[in-house]
Amino acid sequence: MSAPTPVDPVALTADLIRCPSVTPEEGGALQHLQTLLEGAGFDCTRVDRGGVSNLFARWGKKGAARTFGFNGHTDVVPVGDAAAWTADPFGAEVREGRMYGRGATDMKSGVAAFAAAAVDFVRQTPPDGAVVLAITGDEEGDAIDGTTALLDWMQSEGETMSHCLVGEPTCPATMGEMIKIGRRGSMTAWFTATGKQGHSAYPHRAKNPLPAMARLIDRLASHELDQGTDHFDPSTLAVVQFDTGNGATNVIPAQCRAAVNIRFNDLHSGASLSQWLRREAQDVSRMFDIVIETEIKVSGEAFLTPPGELSDLVAKAVEAETGVTPELSTTGGTSDARFVKDLCPVVEFGLVGETMHQVDENVPVEQITQLKGIYARILADYFA
Amino acid sequence: MSAPTPVDPVALTADLIRCPSVTPEEGGALQHLQTLLEGAGFDCTRVDRGGVSNLFARWGKKGAARTFGFNGHTDVVPVGDAAAWTADPFGAEVREGRMYGRGATDMKSGVAAFAAAAVDFVRQTPPDGAVVLAITGDEEGDAIDGTTALLDWMQSEGETMSHCLVGEPTCPATMGEMIKIGRRGSMTAWFTATGKQGHSAYPHRAKNPLPAMARLIDRLASHELDQGTDHFDPSTLAVVQFDTGNGATNVIPAQCRAAVNIRFNDLHSGASLSQWLRREAQDVSRMFDIVIETEIKVSGEAFLTPPGELSDLVAKAVEAETGVTPELSTTGGTSDARFVKDLCPVVEFGLVGETMHQVDENVPVEQITQLKGIYARILADYFA
Ligand SMILES: [Zn+2]
Ligand SMILES: [Zn+2]
Repeated sequence: MSAPTPVDPVALTADLIRCPSVTPEEGGALQHLQTLLEGAGFDCTRVDRGGVSNLFARWGKKGAARTFGFNGHTDVVPVGDAAAWTADPFGAEVREGRMYGRGATDMKSGVAAFAAAAVDFVRQTPPDGAVVLAITGDEEGDAIDGTTALLDWMQSEGETMSHCLVGEPTCPATMGEMIKIGRRGSMTAWFTATGKQGHSAYPHRAKNPLPAMARLIDRLASHELDQGTDHFDPSTLAVVQFDTGNGATNVIPAQCRAAVNIRFNDLHSGASLSQWLRREAQDVSRMFDIVIETEIKVSGEAFLTPPGELSDLVAKAVEAETGVTPELSTTGGTSDARFVKDLCPVVEFGLVGETMHQVDENVPVEQITQLKGIYARILADYFA
Repeated sequence: MSAPTPVDPVALTADLIRCPSVTPEEGGALQHLQTLLEGAGFDCTRVDRGGVSNLFARWGKKGAARTFGFNGHTDVVPVGDAAAWTADPFGAEVREGRMYGRGATDMKSGVAAFAAAAVDFVRQTPPDGAVVLAITGDEEGDAIDGTTALLDWMQSEGETMSHCLVGEPTCPATMGEMIKIGRRGSMTAWFTATGKQGHSAYPHRAKNPLPAMARLIDRLASHELDQGTDHFDPSTLAVVQFDTGNGATNVIPAQCRAAVNIRFNDLHSGASLSQWLRREAQDVSRMFDIVIETEIKVSGEAFLTPPGELSDLVAKAVEAETGVTPELSTTGGTSDARFVKDLCPVVEFGLVGETMHQVDENVPVEQITQLKGIYARILADYFA
């Protein structure tokens, strides 16, 4: 029996780009991966929830002590201004060494690279353990029925991962320069201040909610949350909305709204910050005798996989394949790693994300091959 | 020769209400008054400017040392919710002693009362001096081409008034209870704060204008302008607008706007307050490194006709006719008295304004007769 042909991650990326999988459409992308993975001996299960499709694939024994997992998504954000694209967003056209299409960097190339690496690996050097691919179709949307659904299903089925790598693009400009070992938490708070409408010539007969809201926002915005920690930048609070919708200048409005978005490090939790926000709103409410309602949504807690076995493994592989020593970072927005971290140590590594979500999203073809090489080396070293 | 029949101010009010003189339409109201006044020997001139018509009428010698003036307007605000009226807004229907119609209180009844009083007075007891009626068709609108146009024209023609009474409704609830001897000034300031848009996860790459604006508004709103003066309530500042128009919670907006409306007493001027507002904006701008543009519109300066000859004259007449001792007040919004005050001492007295600008605006018929009586007594006493 001759050795099976290695999977070409570039061709696989092109196949995936040609599937129009704008959230929540599966677009054929998961089906394509499932066929490939089943052909290599992976047990595949489609985990569908809330109109979203996800794919769980395992090679090796369920619950094996050493189970390496990859996590990623095949759904993509909408095309945006279609007329502004110079290439078919679902065409995977290659021009001057770059492949164009929605999802080229975020993250069909990443999924293709780890799927190709995993298939080759289990075929060529079947490991003592298991390799799991948890691929979701709901990362760019609400992310309620994506990785979370997969993790829920895994728990109920006794499926596991002992370590996990999320294949999101992590490098700001140069391939190999950044591994993410954690993420800041993210939350948004909406405040509604309600007083009593009136004529601006008789302010004592009205109750103006605007000075109260201005005070609250000033207090929140001038508060230093922290000065950063060993692995995290200082937490930040950004005032993002402040609106009244009062067209008249001789009318004191009855209500106004404001919103702040907080990105917080491991010194805080959604709960501790919620408490602080509600206390501030209460203080100002009392001070001004204005009702202030507070609504809070925590989209992700801060988490950190402290530098160690997993980050060493990934860093070594990145350096060997690219010659670049990656920085261990916790910067950026949120990712599905915020869900995976409840199951096992998780880090993130992928290619350069510069053009993600943009018109003419594209990826240098050689980065896809390089990324497959890195993922392959990680698997080899992990099970060595 | 028999004595001429006195002019019925109630019938005259009804005639004027039936003229649909919504600003800037003359609607026949000024023409009706002109015919009446010319019949009584008044020299009438239509002073038209900017699409608005105004009426100047003088009985007696131009430039007479003792010239008593009445000022008022025949234009009215729109009907509003026509379906909500229980009477024709231009019908002058009388029901249970009240006459209904747009302008019933503000201020066709006032104009009718002083026109009727003036006509009777010059016919019955021709004074040694002059009586002037300066009636505008642009008080409820921009008031740019109304009383101001009349005053400009008067100056160019050598016309004058030595004392003036504005016939706006001045009584809050009971006929006779309030004379206005001044008005607070009014101004509005709009602030536009401009920074740099960015993602809320990377606030250091953006420049958020919202905290700067919140600080500015907090500073302005918590500043005590004064504690009032002998004849004025404390000046007030009302924050009336604060808007961003940013739908996203993960985007730091580039710009936000806010507006404040100030009602100020005789301790301030539009210029002194403008200086203060601009200085505050500048301070905050420097503090936050955010550009803040300030736009200011002064709609009227504060003014006071100190209690004395004119207010005594009016108060005495009010008390004699109604039995009520009027309060000398400076409360309320602005009126055309803010323009007249540059020419001569001016006070304001009129009937109860409760329903002005409202659906089913109406006036007790007897108040019209009473008001004519008061104006007649003022003329008699003034020239006695
Ligand atoms: Zn992504
Ligand atoms: Zn009026």
